[in-house]
Amino acid sequence: MKKIGKEFMEKTKYKYEEESDQEKGIKQPPLELKYDYKCNIVDLPDPSEINIKDISLREAIEERHSLRSYSDKKLTLEELNFLLWCTQGIRDIRVGKATFRNVPSAGARHAFETYLLINNVEGLSTGVYRYIAIENKLIEINMETGIEDKVVEACAGQKFINKSAVTFIWTAVPYRMSWRYGERAYRYLHLDAGHVCQNLYLSAEAIDCGVCAVAAFEDDELNDLLKIDGKDQFAIYVAAVGKK
Amino acid sequence: MKKIGKEFMEKTKYKYEEESDQEKGIKQPPLELKYDYKCNIVDLPDPSEINIKDISLREAIEERHSLRSYSDKKLTLEELNFLLWCTQGIRDIRVGKATFRNVPSAGARHAFETYLLINNVEGLSTGVYRYIAIENKLIEINMETGIEDKVVEACAGQKFINKSAVTFIWTAVPYRMSWRYGERAYRYLHLDAGHVCQNLYLSAEAIDCGVCAVAAFEDDELNDLLKIDGKDQFAIYVAAVGKK
Repeated sequence: MKKIGKEFMEKTKYKYEEESDQEKGIKQPPLELKYDYKCNIVDLPDPSEINIKDISLREAIEERHSLRSYSDKKLTLEELNFLLWCTQGIRDIRVGKATFRNVPSAGARHAFETYLLINNVEGLSTGVYRYIAIENKLIEINMETGIEDKVVEACAGQKFINKSAVTFIWTAVPYRMSWRYGERAYRYLHLDAGHVCQNLYLSAEAIDCGVCAVAAFEDDELNDLLKIDGKDQFAIYVAAVGKK
Repeated sequence: MKKIGKEFMEKTKYKYEEESDQEKGIKQPPLELKYDYKCNIVDLPDPSEINIKDISLREAIEERHSLRSYSDKKLTLEELNFLLWCTQGIRDIRVGKATFRNVPSAGARHAFETYLLINNVEGLSTGVYRYIAIENKLIEINMETGIEDKVVEACAGQKFINKSAVTFIWTAVPYRMSWRYGERAYRYLHLDAGHVCQNLYLSAEAIDCGVCAVAAFEDDELNDLLKIDGKDQFAIYVAAVGKK
């Protein structure tokens, strides 16, 4: 058990030991997971219409720090839209091939689906939602009463999460990455999640919010709350956001 | 072999299965690796003196794209200092306990040492250097002739690397993270490296540079060029930077 990290690094050394599924000519997986069209949907405005006060890059970098205590102020839907745009927003799409987003991803594989625990956002009920990046909308995933406390529990009891306005829960769909990169893909998924989270930290500064990233979560419990299987899709990183 | 990624995720589930070394009362490792005081050293100016044109955060995020083709323009030492400040610069230090930097890190463990392949920076010879973050200086690591081509080779022949002005090679010292988090630390190291690289992407925009991250590298070859052992310290992520 002690050596699992070292072993993982050893066994995922480049060059990928076998042909990848891409090299074998296997069809690539879809760019985004499907969703049930009958579920409740919240349309988000076009990102080009987002009107957020501009701040300096350097200020954002130098001011960022992890914030675990939030005020009661609500996020507006526009502010939430801005955070989604900066973290996973799609600039361009080559249908069936790749998406190009506001974050870099290994080989433009973009293997994430973003889930949100919404807690204190104008016009939205408390619950877990999924962001459909290609269509820029939210769908309801888990609206059960007390879901915010269950997410806290799944995140090792870190109570600031249920005081957040919104908590991002990024999930990985590993085959979108491993189709090209084999088992080394599991490194890249984590590297990519770091890119995304850093953009959340910085973009939150522009809307007077603070962020605290969370990587200590009970994997199975959190996956269950998102209604994902934990194998073909799993939670990879979490970050709480709230007004200062 | 096929399942190493899934296995790694499975075996690094929270809650950490055993007591961590921290919980056992074992002394924490140093905040930074030692270096040979007799080596050649380049002092960098105080980060508060860095005078770089300011750009908007949103512009930096929306303009960022991976750039693999660079002009011949040199980076100034001030510009390099700015990139180092934004990616690993230390704001504050609690001696023997933790550093606080311009990027977030799990539990403020900050388990990286930054190496640079310097290729086209004013006043610096071509070679591999290490950034000593606590003292804000560079030390020479590997100045052998043709080192830039060897780094290209170790990075799967990605030739744009020897056209870069500087290529960042982040190395992880895993025990700085696993001392607290056990084997799950290997997830956190990669998440953290993503934060760092995203700040490089964005800060490069402020100095008219482009970046291309590289995660496909021959681990052993690259570690050898940095003169690190690949176990207690290993290359985790690479990113080339050059003027547009």
